[in-house]
Amino acid sequence: MKTLAEARAIVFGQFLRTGTMPGETLPVLDAVGRVLSGPVTAKLSSPNYHAAAMDGIAVKAENTFGASETRPKQLAVDREAFYLNTGHVMPPETNAVIMIEHVTVLSDSRVQIEAPAFPWQNVRKMGEDIVATEMLFPQNHVVTPYCIGALLSAGILEIPVHRKPRVLIIPTGSELVDWQRIDLKDLAPGRVLDTNSYVLGKLVESCGGTYHKHEKLFDDLQTIKTVVEQSVAEDFDIVLIIGGSSAGSEDYARQVVAELGNVLVHGVTIMPGKPVIIGEVLEKPVFGIPGYPVSAIIAFEQFVRPLIYGRLGRPDAAPQTAVVEPTRKIASKLGVEEFLRVKLGKVGDRLVATPLPRGAGSITSITEADGIIRIPNHVEGIRDREPVTAELLRPLTTVNNRIVIVGSHDNTLDVLADRLRSGNSGLSLSSSHVGSIGGLMAIKKGMCHLAGSHLLDTENGTYNISYIQRYLPELSAGNRIRLVNLVFREQGLIVPPGNPKQIRGIEDLGREDVSLINRQGGSGTRILLDYRLQALNMDPAGINGYTNEEFTHMSVAVAVLGGSADVGLGIYAAAKALELDFIPVVTEQYDLVIPQDYFEIPNIQLLLDTIRTAEFQKRVRSLGGYGTEKTGEVLL
Amino acid sequence: MKTLAEARAIVFGQFLRTGTMPGETLPVLDAVGRVLSGPVTAKLSSPNYHAAAMDGIAVKAENTFGASETRPKQLAVDREAFYLNTGHVMPPETNAVIMIEHVTVLSDSRVQIEAPAFPWQNVRKMGEDIVATEMLFPQNHVVTPYCIGALLSAGILEIPVHRKPRVLIIPTGSELVDWQRIDLKDLAPGRVLDTNSYVLGKLVESCGGTYHKHEKLFDDLQTIKTVVEQSVAEDFDIVLIIGGSSAGSEDYARQVVAELGNVLVHGVTIMPGKPVIIGEVLEKPVFGIPGYPVSAIIAFEQFVRPLIYGRLGRPDAAPQTAVVEPTRKIASKLGVEEFLRVKLGKVGDRLVATPLPRGAGSITSITEADGIIRIPNHVEGIRDREPVTAELLRPLTTVNNRIVIVGSHDNTLDVLADRLRSGNSGLSLSSSHVGSIGGLMAIKKGMCHLAGSHLLDTENGTYNISYIQRYLPELSAGNRIRLVNLVFREQGLIVPPGNPKQIRGIEDLGREDVSLINRQGGSGTRILLDYRLQALNMDPAGINGYTNEEFTHMSVAVAVLGGSADVGLGIYAAAKALELDFIPVVTEQYDLVIPQDYFEIPNIQLLLDTIRTAEFQKRVRSLGGYGTEKTGEVLL
Repeated sequence: MKTLAEARAIVFGQFLRTGTMPGETLPVLDAVGRVLSGPVTAKLSSPNYHAAAMDGIAVKAENTFGASETRPKQLAVDREAFYLNTGHVMPPETNAVIMIEHVTVLSDSRVQIEAPAFPWQNVRKMGEDIVATEMLFPQNHVVTPYCIGALLSAGILEIPVHRKPRVLIIPTGSELVDWQRIDLKDLAPGRVLDTNSYVLGKLVESCGGTYHKHEKLFDDLQTIKTVVEQSVAEDFDIVLIIGGSSAGSEDYARQVVAELGNVLVHGVTIMPGKPVIIGEVLEKPVFGIPGYPVSAIIAFEQFVRPLIYGRLGRPDAAPQTAVVEPTRKIASKLGVEEFLRVKLGKVGDRLVATPLPRGAGSITSITEADGIIRIPNHVEGIRDREPVTAELLRPLTTVNNRIVIVGSHDNTLDVLADRLRSGNSGLSLSSSHVGSIGGLMAIKKGMCHLAGSHLLDTENGTYNISYIQRYLPELSAGNRIRLVNLVFREQGLIVPPGNPKQIRGIEDLGREDVSLINRQGGSGTRILLDYRLQALNMDPAGINGYTNEEFTHMSVAVAVLGGSADVGLGIYAAAKALELDFIPVVTEQYDLVIPQDYFEIPNIQLLLDTIRTAEFQKRVRSLGGYGTEKTGEVLL
Repeated sequence: MKTLAEARAIVFGQFLRTGTMPGETLPVLDAVGRVLSGPVTAKLSSPNYHAAAMDGIAVKAENTFGASETRPKQLAVDREAFYLNTGHVMPPETNAVIMIEHVTVLSDSRVQIEAPAFPWQNVRKMGEDIVATEMLFPQNHVVTPYCIGALLSAGILEIPVHRKPRVLIIPTGSELVDWQRIDLKDLAPGRVLDTNSYVLGKLVESCGGTYHKHEKLFDDLQTIKTVVEQSVAEDFDIVLIIGGSSAGSEDYARQVVAELGNVLVHGVTIMPGKPVIIGEVLEKPVFGIPGYPVSAIIAFEQFVRPLIYGRLGRPDAAPQTAVVEPTRKIASKLGVEEFLRVKLGKVGDRLVATPLPRGAGSITSITEADGIIRIPNHVEGIRDREPVTAELLRPLTTVNNRIVIVGSHDNTLDVLADRLRSGNSGLSLSSSHVGSIGGLMAIKKGMCHLAGSHLLDTENGTYNISYIQRYLPELSAGNRIRLVNLVFREQGLIVPPGNPKQIRGIEDLGREDVSLINRQGGSGTRILLDYRLQALNMDPAGINGYTNEEFTHMSVAVAVLGGSADVGLGIYAAAKALELDFIPVVTEQYDLVIPQDYFEIPNIQLLLDTIRTAEFQKRVRSLGGYGTEKTGEVLL
């Protein structure tokens, strides 16, 4: 096992010694984004003649010396003064232009001036911008749209650029399915769509290479070996074997590389991405890329991207960074550098970072991420609110224009997120699901702009207000907190289609043959369930699965759909989405809790305007199980 | 005339009301960089079954409770324990995976464990990453390579994206020449290559639109009007008329727009870019874009790019910024917002900004720029070293890896810049030409890492040392300055081919029929000339053109080539580059002056290593007129 720094030193030391890619010649117009393989020198000067820079008359400056308001000078047209427009050639013997506004026309043949011209005023001299034969751009310069202008002005129509590195991507894994060849409806459990090949392929393209995807290979040593051996002999510059890079019984990547060449590194102390293999076959780099999507991406970005950039003569893309504060304590393993994906939001004057799922299998943890916190090998974790550096995946302007909502999960938040993205405000919504009480705590800690909450006061049947008083006493006492209704919604028991266990209500949860999937403590739904159980005098200890918890309505519905539970308490929309049956239990109130300080900012006002639109409410009602009769009403 | 803010408000108010572009459906693989025109919801869950997350045995967790080292549990294979690998389907009734490393195999049919499993350990539950029916991305989300993974995992093969805005670019100007149709050798004075169309076209592409370039139009009202009228009726979304946007006698853009629709803005208080026209024809935006290249780029970036982004539902690209210190005082016109292009470099702990040529005609002022300082309307200028904000055109990492050399101009600096860019160090050279003494002053002010200097001490014939003592007394007295030879070079009189005026030496500069182009005061070449004149007892006042100054050897050579002077003092390489004749006057010493603090940093050491290579010296000698016998030698 190598550290990241050790492994990178090995890769770059081994494969960047050979220098940059050979060059090819391209028409200038096709070269934006490409990298010059040699210096480019100008063939023409620009301007390539002395040019008037104003509309007016061209003169010999020396003829105008002494002119003044009291002693104006007269000049003979077409002998001492020549009318011309911007861009025209300066006539012989002239060296200055007097703006037409400063010229008094006496007749067709005479003009008068009241001030002298100094030599070369309002003239763009030949070669002022570009001198023929001078170097315009050095080697390894990246061609931008601006450069097209300079190149063409300098009379350069073709330029030498580094050939794009060619990357062969070989997906391996008997479980893989090519989605271009099957009907997705027929995807059997245990079969996995090959997505990594395309993600890596598009990443190759985005850093300036081209890729070819080999057809998927079964987990078979000889097959993989044969393909790699043939590929390396072809004109690929880099080979990526995806999958089988670990040490399991069907992992062959290491053996393939070892038998055909040398394994330089197997295993790097990073997470995700640990089981990466870096090898060399016929002096070409061959990588064993782990099969989990986030592992594959991180292995690519740490090793393959810098290699492609290096072969193109570019330094690796250095990320922008920002100092952020995690919303909660994060433990991390000693001896491993973790790439923790986080959502970011600007709350007050702080950049708060909400950790996303840490599993390497969660592709959405990287599509949703605004940044990555790298927790070094020697660090055991990060404290709650400890300022740490995050590498940014999106520009800070995007992050600054993001509303952060933390709290209870509700499907209408997706509708809200989508509606907020309409138009071109750049506004977006980041929503994290930690339960209603978790949301109130996040407000207390200043970690969000607002919270979604549906906390039932079992004493008096009201929602949220008494919890706000209890959990946010200072804001509440100072009248610095607002409560706005988002929706009313039906909560009920979610059961498989046809309700095979014939569940009729909460009381059936105590049955021996029934297994529950529960929500986490602190969620409004859990409080609702506990309240109902108490009212029925039922002991939680007697309910199968009471301790199995999920964090969202949709995960509860998935658990029922997948058969790992017979029933769960959740919202109608979740049941409907997955075509499950639903037994209504209660209609409850889901509100937005907003500190006064944020209530007043334009982004939050825009959010409130959005939920008050007919379009938002119509889309919410179409989810099923929702009432919008008080949506947008300020309750507190 | 409108301010920039007023004009932008008018453009966006008028043309972004209509909302975003209509959608079209694309295969996911073709959609990287595109923007979703509607929300995308998952069709498959991911995983779409409960999947083992480790190689090991699948068990029902409840069967393992109580297992310990002292009281291990035995499980029956294929009844209570099922061998599987990562990614395999969990067998019915199982809900946990025990890693193979923690399993003791007793026989083919029995295994033993010494710790309990908790429910769902090492299992990726169905829907853990993506739940079918949930929203994956909201509208106006930009598709990245990462997204490809999430989309395919969710079973989404096609997505709705905003159609790319179509931009018609109409170059106008009778002087324009299509470089695709002529031999550049035949380019006559007064004819100008059409470069703006392609720069703007590539900028359109880079912000997500497509462009069509119309053939060039002559400056003729009726022709331009007819083309614009027809184009607007077609399916273009934006029309750009390049050129003729000012108020001159052949400027027709305003009249065209006024006759076909409405002129919303004519003239914005920005520089470059002032004569921009913003109009509306058949509810479509029609822009009159000024013809100077930098004006065209700034008008595009301030108005057209945000419009394209807006129609795509994206916020405009906000630039990264940094606080920089200008190397010199910059005066600016009140009432105009200037976009000043600057080169940047990190010198010590300061980001220094060297202003580039301010003319709108200088395309290289924007290709060379690392950043833009915007000087607001109400500000008369910026003081020397006053900290100001610059918008960055290149990442700070590039800027931080840049060596800043200020001082005398020499053509070998281009060779050095190119050699430093070889490999993939990311190192680059920024060189500014202010004369030798200007370079020493820049060192004194901490504005550069090193200076190029060839200052002759006329008392004793030495170079640079006595000037260092005089201009940098503290560094010199503290022995904190180093001097390294770059080259020896021939200085001489540059004259047109064939030497038509029969100039033989400095003494001929006093002739009535001879006109000189001089170098600026403070340059080593000027000091050399003045020394020679004094030795010959010649009065500068008696020399034609003595007061006409240029800043580089190449500009002197261009002045001779262009016929605006008969002779200039300069280096052989400049004469040779432009195929001019050269009369040697002296061989002089050109050195690098380096403060000790920078002498020691790795980048400068790499620069010194580079000039000591045979390859650098060979390329320098091939320029002609250079000697490298002491190149790289430390003289002080």
